[in-house]
Amino acid sequence: MYKFALIQYAPKWSLDPASKDETFRAVGSLIREAASNGASVVALPEMWFCPYAVKPMAIYAEEEGGETCRFMSRAAKENGVWLIGGSIAEKDGDRYYNTCFVYGPDGGRIARHRKNHVFGINIPGEMVFSEGRLFTTGEGPTVFETPFGKIGVAICYDVRFRDPVEREALMGAELVVLPASFGFATGKAHWDMLLRSRAVENQIYFAGINGATDPDETVPYRAYGHSAIYDPWGERLAVAGHGEEILYAEIDEGRVREIRERLPVMRDKLRIDRGEYGAPESGE
Amino acid sequence: MYKFALIQYAPKWSLDPASKDETFRAVGSLIREAASNGASVVALPEMWFCPYAVKPMAIYAEEEGGETCRFMSRAAKENGVWLIGGSIAEKDGDRYYNTCFVYGPDGGRIARHRKNHVFGINIPGEMVFSEGRLFTTGEGPTVFETPFGKIGVAICYDVRFRDPVEREALMGAELVVLPASFGFATGKAHWDMLLRSRAVENQIYFAGINGATDPDETVPYRAYGHSAIYDPWGERLAVAGHGEEILYAEIDEGRVREIRERLPVMRDKLRIDRGEYGAPESGE
Repeated sequence: MYKFALIQYAPKWSLDPASKDETFRAVGSLIREAASNGASVVALPEMWFCPYAVKPMAIYAEEEGGETCRFMSRAAKENGVWLIGGSIAEKDGDRYYNTCFVYGPDGGRIARHRKNHVFGINIPGEMVFSEGRLFTTGEGPTVFETPFGKIGVAICYDVRFRDPVEREALMGAELVVLPASFGFATGKAHWDMLLRSRAVENQIYFAGINGATDPDETVPYRAYGHSAIYDPWGERLAVAGHGEEILYAEIDEGRVREIRERLPVMRDKLRIDRGEYGAPESGE
Repeated sequence: MYKFALIQYAPKWSLDPASKDETFRAVGSLIREAASNGASVVALPEMWFCPYAVKPMAIYAEEEGGETCRFMSRAAKENGVWLIGGSIAEKDGDRYYNTCFVYGPDGGRIARHRKNHVFGINIPGEMVFSEGRLFTTGEGPTVFETPFGKIGVAICYDVRFRDPVEREALMGAELVVLPASFGFATGKAHWDMLLRSRAVENQIYFAGINGATDPDETVPYRAYGHSAIYDPWGERLAVAGHGEEILYAEIDEGRVREIRERLPVMRDKLRIDRGEYGAPESGE
């Protein structure tokens, strides 16, 4: 049993990467608040360090170990928390990735998830956008171990696909964390259902940390907010509004076991995963 | 564009297979009503021909081509409809399957789906049950072609897994039909969300035809009702209450195309399916 905190934060809309300093101060203070309220694991939203648009993401991009990584490492260590660092634009050689770095309470980098499915949308008048113009897709699931249990990571559009989330649950993750930047069009239509659905199907805790809605209505893109966390039976433990907010939830591995004893969905998925698909069940 | 009808029907709770005659009269009359209202495709719920419990399913079971198959073939032909025959207990040698047979308007048997995932549940005081005591699991997706488009079939607990539904969508099904017998415990908790989620993730029409709730509160098992159909954006086109009812919806392949142009989830799934997972996107 541990306390998990979701930080719903609105990225500053600035084309100047010098804005990072102000962001580090604001986000650092939110991480400190979450830790002082007892959170052992803290998560940030997708692309919290820059505007969610292709050009700024290219300008703000850093190699691993750059100033934003150093900030996250320091924040994890100073507050003694596991920090799931939302995502930032990562530059690796001539490729760009939408990447989540995870830091342990000693400040060490313990996991990296590169968004598996890069996002594109074409709703003229509402949102036309393609991450594929900048990002290369990452590959595979990401699970890391803590003293409290295993945790998986997926990013935003990843939530619409079977993998990586199902794969992470099969690898033993009891909580999967989804930093995101859902906008209003798909946010209103699908956000909440997708979170709840992933929790129920994989019988895990599933947390979506979305960007907060920028109070300035004139910025080119505003996230939808409404971060939420569901338990393995699909009960909503906490939900945010549009603004900046920290949500808290207790993660209880006993609840995961209880739900899987009720309804053996994960046992049946593991059976299929072992290649026993099609075999008759034992007469239990 | 065609009209699709979901027949929410409450199976008679009788241990005597002679009750089939009464069932055929009642269900035959509902199929006639759906056809006279313009439906070209008609679907029944899971195990509509017998009580949903292990012993009666074993007693009522028939080989393919038995009296219940002949009834369905005749009903399809007489009414000139495509009939998705919910499911019945099928005996094949010494094995039993939970099987959906599909008949064309000429009475020919055009598809067979054997439930891929046999259901078990263990909520003491609410529902304790295991289909695995009787049924062997079927294998693989089921898609059939009509002049109006491709249609897929899955059965009840299949809805909690990505396959067969995702596989059927990748094979080109624009509508997937799920005969079911969800009870109250999981019905209240998950039924509606699972239907909507399958529609949105696969950008298809998704219809859940559940058993109607038996008005007799003393029978050992009562289905939850609440059959519903969702369009590929997750809009609910029709929903039933608890009682016997026929729902209708217009299926429009143009709507499937429109949603997939908005948000290219299925394009991205097909790319992964072709083994292009991890490749960078073209700079569109």
